[in-house]
Amino acid sequence: MPFTPTDYDPYDFANRRHIGPSPEEMAEMFKVLGVDSLDQLIDQTVPASIRQAQPLEFGPPLSERELLWHLRQVAKQNRVFTSMIGQGFHGTVTPPAIQRNILENPAWYTAYTPYQPEISQGRLEALLNFQTMVTDLTGLPVANASLLDEATACAEAVTMAQRLAKSKATAVFVDENCHPQNIAVIRTRAEPLGIAVIVGDPADLEPAAVFAGVFQYPGTHGQVTDFTDVIASLHDKGALGIVVADPMALTLLKEPGAMGADIAVGSTQRFGVPMGYGGPHAAYMACRDDYKRAMPGRIVGVSVDARGNKAYRLALQTREQHIRREKATSNVCTAQALLAVMAGFYAVFHGAKGLKAIAQGIHSRTVHLADGLEEAGFIVTPDTFFDTITVEVGPMQGVILQNARAREINLRKVGQTRIGITLDETTRWESIRNVWAAFGVERSDADRAPRYRIPDALFRQSDYLTHPVFQMNRAETEMMRYMRRLADRDLALDRAMIPLGSCTMKLNAAVEMMPISWPEFAHLHPFAPADQALGYAHVVADLSARLCQITGYDAMSLQPNSGAQGEYAGLLTIAAYHRAQGQGHRKVCLIPVSAHGTNPASAQMCGMKVVVVKSAANGDIDLDDFRAKAAAAGDNLAACMITYPSTHGVFEETVREVCAITHQYGGQVYLDGANMNAMVGLSKPGEIGADVSHLNLHKTFAIPHGGGGPGMGPIGVKAHLAPFLPGDPRTGTGEGPVSASPYGSASILLISWAYCLAMGGAGLTQATKVAILNANYIAARLQGAYGVLFKGKEGRVAHECILDTRPFDDSAGVSVEDIAKRLIDNGFHAPTMSWPVAGTLMVEPTESETKAELDRFCDAMLAIRAEIAAIEAGEMDRANNPLKNAPHTVNDLVADWDRPYSREQGCFPPGSFRVDKYWPPVGRVDNVWGDRNFTCTCPPVESYAEAAE
Amino acid sequence: MPFTPTDYDPYDFANRRHIGPSPEEMAEMFKVLGVDSLDQLIDQTVPASIRQAQPLEFGPPLSERELLWHLRQVAKQNRVFTSMIGQGFHGTVTPPAIQRNILENPAWYTAYTPYQPEISQGRLEALLNFQTMVTDLTGLPVANASLLDEATACAEAVTMAQRLAKSKATAVFVDENCHPQNIAVIRTRAEPLGIAVIVGDPADLEPAAVFAGVFQYPGTHGQVTDFTDVIASLHDKGALGIVVADPMALTLLKEPGAMGADIAVGSTQRFGVPMGYGGPHAAYMACRDDYKRAMPGRIVGVSVDARGNKAYRLALQTREQHIRREKATSNVCTAQALLAVMAGFYAVFHGAKGLKAIAQGIHSRTVHLADGLEEAGFIVTPDTFFDTITVEVGPMQGVILQNARAREINLRKVGQTRIGITLDETTRWESIRNVWAAFGVERSDADRAPRYRIPDALFRQSDYLTHPVFQMNRAETEMMRYMRRLADRDLALDRAMIPLGSCTMKLNAAVEMMPISWPEFAHLHPFAPADQALGYAHVVADLSARLCQITGYDAMSLQPNSGAQGEYAGLLTIAAYHRAQGQGHRKVCLIPVSAHGTNPASAQMCGMKVVVVKSAANGDIDLDDFRAKAAAAGDNLAACMITYPSTHGVFEETVREVCAITHQYGGQVYLDGANMNAMVGLSKPGEIGADVSHLNLHKTFAIPHGGGGPGMGPIGVKAHLAPFLPGDPRTGTGEGPVSASPYGSASILLISWAYCLAMGGAGLTQATKVAILNANYIAARLQGAYGVLFKGKEGRVAHECILDTRPFDDSAGVSVEDIAKRLIDNGFHAPTMSWPVAGTLMVEPTESETKAELDRFCDAMLAIRAEIAAIEAGEMDRANNPLKNAPHTVNDLVADWDRPYSREQGCFPPGSFRVDKYWPPVGRVDNVWGDRNFTCTCPPVESYAEAAE
Repeated sequence: MPFTPTDYDPYDFANRRHIGPSPEEMAEMFKVLGVDSLDQLIDQTVPASIRQAQPLEFGPPLSERELLWHLRQVAKQNRVFTSMIGQGFHGTVTPPAIQRNILENPAWYTAYTPYQPEISQGRLEALLNFQTMVTDLTGLPVANASLLDEATACAEAVTMAQRLAKSKATAVFVDENCHPQNIAVIRTRAEPLGIAVIVGDPADLEPAAVFAGVFQYPGTHGQVTDFTDVIASLHDKGALGIVVADPMALTLLKEPGAMGADIAVGSTQRFGVPMGYGGPHAAYMACRDDYKRAMPGRIVGVSVDARGNKAYRLALQTREQHIRREKATSNVCTAQALLAVMAGFYAVFHGAKGLKAIAQGIHSRTVHLADGLEEAGFIVTPDTFFDTITVEVGPMQGVILQNARAREINLRKVGQTRIGITLDETTRWESIRNVWAAFGVERSDADRAPRYRIPDALFRQSDYLTHPVFQMNRAETEMMRYMRRLADRDLALDRAMIPLGSCTMKLNAAVEMMPISWPEFAHLHPFAPADQALGYAHVVADLSARLCQITGYDAMSLQPNSGAQGEYAGLLTIAAYHRAQGQGHRKVCLIPVSAHGTNPASAQMCGMKVVVVKSAANGDIDLDDFRAKAAAAGDNLAACMITYPSTHGVFEETVREVCAITHQYGGQVYLDGANMNAMVGLSKPGEIGADVSHLNLHKTFAIPHGGGGPGMGPIGVKAHLAPFLPGDPRTGTGEGPVSASPYGSASILLISWAYCLAMGGAGLTQATKVAILNANYIAARLQGAYGVLFKGKEGRVAHECILDTRPFDDSAGVSVEDIAKRLIDNGFHAPTMSWPVAGTLMVEPTESETKAELDRFCDAMLAIRAEIAAIEAGEMDRANNPLKNAPHTVNDLVADWDRPYSREQGCFPPGSFRVDKYWPPVGRVDNVWGDRNFTCTCPPVESYAEAAE
Repeated sequence: MPFTPTDYDPYDFANRRHIGPSPEEMAEMFKVLGVDSLDQLIDQTVPASIRQAQPLEFGPPLSERELLWHLRQVAKQNRVFTSMIGQGFHGTVTPPAIQRNILENPAWYTAYTPYQPEISQGRLEALLNFQTMVTDLTGLPVANASLLDEATACAEAVTMAQRLAKSKATAVFVDENCHPQNIAVIRTRAEPLGIAVIVGDPADLEPAAVFAGVFQYPGTHGQVTDFTDVIASLHDKGALGIVVADPMALTLLKEPGAMGADIAVGSTQRFGVPMGYGGPHAAYMACRDDYKRAMPGRIVGVSVDARGNKAYRLALQTREQHIRREKATSNVCTAQALLAVMAGFYAVFHGAKGLKAIAQGIHSRTVHLADGLEEAGFIVTPDTFFDTITVEVGPMQGVILQNARAREINLRKVGQTRIGITLDETTRWESIRNVWAAFGVERSDADRAPRYRIPDALFRQSDYLTHPVFQMNRAETEMMRYMRRLADRDLALDRAMIPLGSCTMKLNAAVEMMPISWPEFAHLHPFAPADQALGYAHVVADLSARLCQITGYDAMSLQPNSGAQGEYAGLLTIAAYHRAQGQGHRKVCLIPVSAHGTNPASAQMCGMKVVVVKSAANGDIDLDDFRAKAAAAGDNLAACMITYPSTHGVFEETVREVCAITHQYGGQVYLDGANMNAMVGLSKPGEIGADVSHLNLHKTFAIPHGGGGPGMGPIGVKAHLAPFLPGDPRTGTGEGPVSASPYGSASILLISWAYCLAMGGAGLTQATKVAILNANYIAARLQGAYGVLFKGKEGRVAHECILDTRPFDDSAGVSVEDIAKRLIDNGFHAPTMSWPVAGTLMVEPTESETKAELDRFCDAMLAIRAEIAAIEAGEMDRANNPLKNAPHTVNDLVADWDRPYSREQGCFPPGSFRVDKYWPPVGRVDNVWGDRNFTCTCPPVESYAEAAE
């Protein structure tokens, strides 16, 4: 028998796992689109003028198994020593049930940001738990649902304080005992805004000279200081007090609220989130109640649904950058939802008693360690502390650090003569003995009676975590079910397509997620010696090289922790370049009116002046207006920010001209990489004239959205900008850093790297093509029923399409929101609403959705259109119809049914599953009620009783 | 401030994670029970006469983190070489999405056996996929939903053939090319049944002399033989043909059905299930349609629900041992559901094309390897093969095996002069080069054109995996959603208590599950050299020692793969002991009437004569009857089998006397360890007079039920029985082995070991006490509403209680099944129905359930009692009421409601969740319809279309 290999490679990750439509399905889709091949469609869609000349050269793609094998070899190059470096990063024990049921569970990690509250009640509750935990621990009444990291949270607090302070001073005081990376990132943020940063001893603080003071608690070298008086002195002068507090320490120490702090920030990393060589983990921010509307980031609030039942939602959304643009208080967009959920569950798992016991254990071991060193004659500072001490060792610093490393322990090098030691909940007695031994002290007394070395005045007096959720039975059975219940309330990618335009909700493959849980990647401190992190070094170098090849740039910084932070970092790079050329006066940034709201917000943060460029009728940049405004800016032109393909979902033919005009006037081109999913393998920003771009790894490169973070926003630049990329946050060398650690959320870089390795160059390119195919297929199927806005010359859209739902407002009284909520009845997350055009839906299917799922979505949209038609024809009531009453809940089904349509019509529109139907836990949520009755913490117990009734 | 440690240890696994009720909850439960302390309750419950004198001494318990650290150290002692040993165990690639979403997902692994079809539709569909895969690949029309392993499946096939064959011969022919472990286990099984085993070359087979022939395909040394003619010759003499077939090979080779085989068995391990040092994995069995009622194991069939919608269920259950007892055809109880689900999904993931491509890859690499060796002058047999070759090497065997090991490759030692080599889907080209090198052949040609070395007559002619489920789009997005949909249809421990009496559905903690996925444990071949398996050796030794301490036995065999197999192995041990004493005539086995059905079935399999002992009115063994029947047996008494505490849930005071009587007549005491969860730390079977027991590790020792397997049933024995424990299945040394590998499903021993280490001796003892507390609490709360049968002297039950629901049949026309189905509306899996007493419910809450969950269950039971009372009072209709119509589905809610109670009453009885309600996907399933219209494979496509309408 002749050997005829099957034409099917079961290990082809790109085509067998990642890309949705099968070859057979694609053939059917071509028919609908009237093309013969995928390449023909791409030729109609992507202008020849911007196509890249050479295919990506990535070597052969790896099968899932080869990928895991390869990742394990790289993992072995990391050496996980016991970290006692501290400086804001700590060993922690992730409860295995949280690891399995949250971090490794697609129901949690594939969810989107909870903007649609009806399908997000689970993670909203989990985030509310996080907020309650933060308010309780800090003693401040309002908290947000996480920020990127402690350093950026510090910077956010500073700019927030400037807006709020009565003081008109333009300087901020920063305690010299803040972690170096916090000081560095504050400096980066302050400089373009003209804020002077005064670093010093709080004892020397002149309150009248500053609008705020920032104090680390405990200090980076271990100090525990009561800032009550210094904050009072700031208040006297109309300035604010900001305390950067370790939440673990706050279980024993007087809380910032009790010191009079106006704002508290910090990292919740040590609440069960592995260090991951720097991230991701969730920072927090809390503040006084009257400051809440000035707080950056997302805040979960409590509202009611259409039946008056309690329902969670994101509150005060009008603060956000997509609304306020260059007037935004911050460009914060991504948060760290998944990690905040983990930290919140860590608190639920342990409760007040458990957290206090953990903190006591850390402290008493630190006391024991210090006692041992002191009794051996070492000078240990400070005298009182929580988990960190500093030892004066003179010229022996090098020897002792080496001794410790020989025992697989990393200590902190402080100056030239001191050594810092920080303990955490993972510190074993054995490690304490080893530290002693590294100092030449031989002792092994493990059983000394525990005692405190905390000043009496700094003992915490108030209760915390008193809410029932923190008092519940913490048997794993109960915890597991609680996590499952919350997961089941939400609709994530593991149940249905999430067709959010501009968000690229593609497959997050299981194999890509696996390495982040491995100890070799999970438990590395970001400031561990380089020779212990060779695995990460390889990942960083190889991923950077691949991203450079994809983008056509020459250098890459993996530091920015989110897309918006990437924009900010990219513009800072441009600004630094201009300064270096003696062109520091260049401040004008041209931004099209259709740009994502983060663009102008980021420009504002870099001290740039935003000049808005018009759109032409077809949605493209108005080239005449662009040319005129560039000419007007002339010598002051710093940059333009463009998105490609445009936020309207079109490959504009004029992009090269836009770049040329910008360069003509001496400006730099920032190309927003949000839509890179339409370009990878087909077109390179660096080749079409752009100078810098950020990449949303959580869009294009398969990092899951995590229910609203983590994200990663590395930036690529042309060679002339490379010297001006963000510097090292630890050392402060180079330009200003933007994140707390050199590679941002380093551990999730593994996901994108694995994605690149498994897809290969051809696979990535095919994915781009299929993303475009899927979008055009939807546009073709819905064309006629809905107007499709903004197409290219040959009538094609790029990787997303905009459906015009504005006419239905008049014709049927149906709003875009009604359609979005009705899609929930079909079991779908809504597309992006009212952006970039108010009253429309922007649909991005990504390459990962199969034709079957696209058809299910199209069927649902067509059924909705039929319902609208029935209203238009007077066959359905204008006010009481399935659209207005959507989403339908089990409560609706059980209640008396007094609607002019049947239960069946209401609950099971075409395209919905019957057996496997997703039931939203609440009906339509009342946003206005929620903002009017704003609370950002768990409601009191009584409200649970009410809800149960 | 003085240091006052909190009275709360957050790392106390036993009390913080595993045990449900908190100290506060326990205090409230004591009040209900009228006791002051847990120990007082235990004193009232467990007779002083059987209490153990010394507490368990296990050393300090390990926290979750210390446990994982410890497990990692042990893991490192295993060395994972490339396995080319073959012999029925193969490297395989588990698709990561299956690993994450099935194997590591509590929704799948904590589920119970799908006896309640309404809450099991997801795994029933997954198992039906498995069955369809098996029937397609084997070419036989009926398949079961898995057996324990290939060797036991062979033995089951032999006994099944004996029952079916027209031939009255008492011998079975076994192909000498069967795997040694298959021959060994067949021998073990045949001997007590008086079946002679003729091992030889099929060419020498005398059809008239045997009732069946067993043929391995491909043979253990690689032969591919067409058995069509030999099977025909067997048929001529009224004998049956059994083919043991590798399902991977069947994608290329002529299938057993086409050879005329009556029965096919085999292992599906290489379909994505890691070797795990021997298991667990799923064996399969398929047979001719007219033999299906004789087939052992569970079979999923298709039926309809109360509305006529398609619904899956376990078919032909009356075949099973719990019904047929000593007349049962097999004692098979546990299957390998979780692993069958994985193997079925592996086929869904790859489809026919993918499997064929994988098989082609394996074969072509084997051909290439063989060619290379032949071209170098080696003699390779057989001439045609699938994945296995054997090389004649004369006295060089040792050197070549060493050479290979030096290259981290294990080959198979065959006799003294040959070497076996088996390839699999994980074999790299690099490994082929290394094998050549081990043979002294230096070549590296990777790109030779693939060719077949399969006889033309043996190429497969028929299609397979043609059903749509195997043709669906296999993008991971689609697969992930399919797995999620199926999971969501089922009710497992991750959503609610499963109060199944006798099943001990306790917490399966996440930390216990983690190590089984680690490569060091997952990828070891069971016959790997001992020095590569030191980690497993440590686990086996340490777990055995702990189990010996717990049970009071002197030796432990971890080989039995299920509880029933443990019983069988234990009785075999007793029989071997008697033979060695010259007492081979002892055949009588006394078994109480209340015994679990596996007891008599196991005794029958060991060739024993079952004599049933009566129960007294209080459920205890009737001691007079016992004494009389022991006396009657006299010199022929082999053993008694008792369960302790009894299957009635009571600690019988007379257990020591039962043992003494047995010993008096020279018998051995088999104490069934099914109820060990009521004994651990309190009482030791070995101390109260028993000689041998099995332990259900999947009950008492935290192995999850996996939706109906895997299980583990190790046996402990007193010293005099130790020499007679099961021998090594590979070498055939010692007594007859019962499983295909020395330690059965070795990898899941890690779960029980981790459980023991994390709980510690005190924790295990406390768990036992709380299990008893929880059962007594339920009995106390429901007493009055329901009769509680069988209590001890002081009115206490052990770890379970029996609720008498028999009176309601008359009083309200309500059956025990109505109550069980109504509990689904409350979101609960039913307790054990009608066992050990018909018409009752046996409730076992285990220690892992919190008081809150116990109360929710009691509230549900009391609400049901109130509904029964309403029927009794004539307030509710006798035929049309919430009990009779249970469970209620979404279809009921949506449909016109013509019932004499409200939707609210029907769907939301007290105790049910509202927002988080579990909706069964089907209404009550019609068992009779299903057995009458029996089909055990996926229905044809049309039925899907119908169901969708």
